[in-house]
Amino acid sequence: MKIVRVKVSNILEVLGSQVISIDGNAENVYIDNLADVANVSVTTLDWVNPSKTDKQMLAENTKAKVVLVDDKVNYTESMKTNGKVLIHVREPKIALCIIGNTLFVQKRRPGTHSSATVSPNAKIGKGVFIGPHCVIENCIIGKNCMIDSNVHIYDDVTIGDNCVIKSGAVIGSEGFGFERDENGNRFRFPQIGNVLIGNNVEIGANTCVDRGALSTTTIGDYTKINNLCHIAHNNVIGKNVVIAAEVNVAGGNVIEDNVWIAPSSSLRGYLTIGKEATVGMGAVVVKNIPAGEIWVGNPAKKLH
Amino acid sequence: MKIVRVKVSNILEVLGSQVISIDGNAENVYIDNLADVANVSVTTLDWVNPSKTDKQMLAENTKAKVVLVDDKVNYTESMKTNGKVLIHVREPKIALCIIGNTLFVQKRRPGTHSSATVSPNAKIGKGVFIGPHCVIENCIIGKNCMIDSNVHIYDDVTIGDNCVIKSGAVIGSEGFGFERDENGNRFRFPQIGNVLIGNNVEIGANTCVDRGALSTTTIGDYTKINNLCHIAHNNVIGKNVVIAAEVNVAGGNVIEDNVWIAPSSSLRGYLTIGKEATVGMGAVVVKNIPAGEIWVGNPAKKLH
Amino acid sequence: MKIVRVKVSNILEVLGSQVISIDGNAENVYIDNLADVANVSVTTLDWVNPSKTDKQMLAENTKAKVVLVDDKVNYTESMKTNGKVLIHVREPKIALCIIGNTLFVQKRRPGTHSSATVSPNAKIGKGVFIGPHCVIENCIIGKNCMIDSNVHIYDDVTIGDNCVIKSGAVIGSEGFGFERDENGNRFRFPQIGNVLIGNNVEIGANTCVDRGALSTTTIGDYTKINNLCHIAHNNVIGKNVVIAAEVNVAGGNVIEDNVWIAPSSSLRGYLTIGKEATVGMGAVVVKNIPAGEIWVGNPAKKLH
Repeated sequence: MKIVRVKVSNILEVLGSQVISIDGNAENVYIDNLADVANVSVTTLDWVNPSKTDKQMLAENTKAKVVLVDDKVNYTESMKTNGKVLIHVREPKIALCIIGNTLFVQKRRPGTHSSATVSPNAKIGKGVFIGPHCVIENCIIGKNCMIDSNVHIYDDVTIGDNCVIKSGAVIGSEGFGFERDENGNRFRFPQIGNVLIGNNVEIGANTCVDRGALSTTTIGDYTKINNLCHIAHNNVIGKNVVIAAEVNVAGGNVIEDNVWIAPSSSLRGYLTIGKEATVGMGAVVVKNIPAGEIWVGNPAKKLH
Repeated sequence: MKIVRVKVSNILEVLGSQVISIDGNAENVYIDNLADVANVSVTTLDWVNPSKTDKQMLAENTKAKVVLVDDKVNYTESMKTNGKVLIHVREPKIALCIIGNTLFVQKRRPGTHSSATVSPNAKIGKGVFIGPHCVIENCIIGKNCMIDSNVHIYDDVTIGDNCVIKSGAVIGSEGFGFERDENGNRFRFPQIGNVLIGNNVEIGANTCVDRGALSTTTIGDYTKINNLCHIAHNNVIGKNVVIAAEVNVAGGNVIEDNVWIAPSSSLRGYLTIGKEATVGMGAVVVKNIPAGEIWVGNPAKKLH
Repeated sequence: MKIVRVKVSNILEVLGSQVISIDGNAENVYIDNLADVANVSVTTLDWVNPSKTDKQMLAENTKAKVVLVDDKVNYTESMKTNGKVLIHVREPKIALCIIGNTLFVQKRRPGTHSSATVSPNAKIGKGVFIGPHCVIENCIIGKNCMIDSNVHIYDDVTIGDNCVIKSGAVIGSEGFGFERDENGNRFRFPQIGNVLIGNNVEIGANTCVDRGALSTTTIGDYTKINNLCHIAHNNVIGKNVVIAAEVNVAGGNVIEDNVWIAPSSSLRGYLTIGKEATVGMGAVVVKNIPAGEIWVGNPAKKLH
C-alpha cells in the first residue's frame, strides 16, 4: 500500500459525482489507510454496507473518523462530538474502490524495463508498462496495459487497452494438438493461429493462453482470468466472463458473456457455455451448459 | 503464421512420397495460408477428411483452389472449369500437417539468447534453441531441442533429441518430500536424484518436473505433456503418453506406454497405470488402472 | 547429487548425538552415494527401517558396506567377514536425511545473481541466495533463504528465515477481487494488503501467493507448499501445514496448524479447516472442516 495522507477535500475531489452530501467538520481530518473490519483505526477510511440493517449503528461505532455511507445514515450528535465526518455517496463500496485504486494502489510507471526482450516489430501503445524479463515478440499491445514480470507474449497476439497481464503468464504459445505418424508416434498439428484479447482484460499470474491452431483464441472485453489457468487453442470467450484460479479450459469452447467459472473446474473441448451460466467449483464439465444455469460436480450436472 | 506464398510444385516437393497423383493445371496456382473450415479462402490449402461420406461434394464446394484429398475423390469437369488442383495423398490430414510444420510454422533459429544463464558444464547438442531468461545448469540437452523462454533446467537432467520445453517450465527442481524432526517440524528428505527425458518429448508451459528423490524421474520418447502439469519425483512415464493440461502426477507412479491422461486429473503416488489406459477428465485416481481400461470420476472408477 | 567420497568418521561427525554406537572396522570404508532400494551398491549409505520385522535380514543382505540401523539390529559374524559397518542411530531415516542434506545436496552459495532485479529498498538477511531473473521489490527477506530463479516478490511481503521459494513463484501479486461499475463492467477492488511468511517455509515452483486485499495473507512457520498452487488473498495458514501440488485455496480461509491438504484439491473461500484435519486428493471443499477430520470427494464430505 502506498503511504499517503489524504484530506477529506481530496476524497471528495476523487469521488466526484459519487458524492451526495457530507456531514461534519472536515477541516484537519485526514485518512491514511484502508483496512478490513478488524483493523480499522482512527485514520482508516471506513465504509458501511447499505444493505445492513444495523448500518446506523455501524457508522456510529466504527473507530474511523471518515466513513462512506449511503443517504439513509444520519449524522448524530455523538458523531459530531466525536469529530466524525460522514460522506454520503451513491455506492459506498464503489466509492471505497475508487479511493483505493486512485490513491493507495502502487502503480507502475509506463515504460519498458531494461531486462525485457522486445521485438522491434512489436506495436506497443502509450502508457504501457513492460516489466523485467518479459519477452515481447511481434505482437500488438494497446494503451495503458500493465505487463508484469517474466511474461511471454508471442507473435500474432493482439491485446486491447487497459489490460493487465500478470507475472509469468504465457500468451500465444503453441497449442496441444497432435497427430500420429505411420509408426504411431505423435507429432504436432501446426499451431499457426493467433490470439485476440479485448480491452480491460486481466490475465493471472502463470496463466497460459494458447494461440489458435488455424484460427483465433479470443478473450472479450472486461473478462478477468485468475492465476494458473489454462486456456487452450481456439476458445472463444465473451465479455465480462470471470474465470477463477486453476481453471482448465480445453480447446475450442464457446464461453458466452457474463459466464462465471469457479476455481479448479475444467471444461472439455468444443462445448458452449451459455450467457450468465455458472460453473461450480471443481466442476468437470462434459456437456453444453444452457444460458443462466448453474452446473456443479464431477461430471457436472445442473444444480436444482 | 509465417507469411509465405507457396507454389503447388513446392507442396509436392515437401510431401514427397505422401503424394499419389495430382489433377489440374498447377501453373500459376499458389497457396498462402492454412485455415479452419469457416475461414477457407481461394488461396488456402484445404483438405478433405477421407472418412466423410460427402467428401466428393466437400472437395467440389470448398473455395480453395488447392485441395488435399485421398485417391477416391474424382477430378470433375466443374473443378477443371474453376481451375482447381487436387493433390491425392495417402493421408490428407497428415499431409496438411507436413505442409504446415514445414512452411508455415515460425521456427526459432538455433542459438542461445544472450539473456540466458548457461552453466559452462552444460552439454548442449547441435541445433538447440535456448530462449531468453532461461537458466541451464549442469545438464545434457540433445540435438534440435527448442527450450523456450524463462525455462529452468537443473543439474543432473538429461534431455534427448528434438524435444520442446515451453516457457516457464521447471525441470529437475527438488521434490516435495519431508520428514519430521524430534520437535515435529518438517524438514526436507534429500532430493538428490535426477531426470531423464527421451527423444521427441514436449513439456508444456509452466509445467514442473521434479527430480527423483534418490533415483530417477523418467519420461519416455514421444510423450507429450501440456501446460501447468506437476510431475512429482520418481515417476516413470513411458512412451507416447499424453498428459493434458493441469494434470497432477504425485510421486513414484509407473505410467506405461500410450496412456492418455485427460485434463485436470490427478494420480495418487505409487500407482501403475497400464498400457493404453485412459484417465478421464478431472479423474481422481487412487488405485492401479489395468491396461486398456478407461477410468473416470472422483474417486475414479472403471467406465462401463 | 554432489559427488563426494565420505568416510565413516565423517558420517559420525555429521550425525552427532543421533549415533548410539558403531560396529565394525570403519577404516578405509567410505560411501559416495545414497540410493533407493533397487540401486544400492557397495558404496551406498543404506538404512534399515526400524519398524520392519525382517530388519536383521535386511541389514545382512544389503550390498552396502555402511548401514544405518537402530539398536535392535545385531552385528553378526558374516557382517564382520563382509567388512560391514553398522551405525546404530536413534532414527535411521532421519540420520539418512541429515547425511543427505549435509553432504549430498547441492547448495546455492549465498549472493544475488547479476541478472536479478532487486529494489534498493529490499531488506535482505545474511546468507540469502537470490537466483537469476528474480524480481525483488520493497520487501523483507530473512536469513538463509533460497530464492530460486524467475521468482517475483512484491512490495510489502515479509519472509522469515530459512525459507525456500522455488522457481517461477509469484509472492504478493494483487488478488482477484472485482466490483461492477454502473455499466456492469468489472473493475478491481483495491488489493493493497500484504503477505507475511514465517520461518522454514517452502513455496513451490510456479506457485502464486496473492497479497491481502486490505489485510494480510499469512503463512505460518514450517508450512510447506508444493508446485503450482494458488493461495488467494487474505488466507491465514497456520504452522506445519502441508499443501500438496496444484491445490487451490480461494480467498479468506483459516487453515489451522498441522492440516494436510492433498494434491489437486480446492477450498472455497472463507472456510475454517481445523487443526490436524486432512483434505483428500481432489476434494472440493465447500464447508468448514472440524479439527482432526478427513474429508474427501466432490463436494467433500467426512470420510467414515
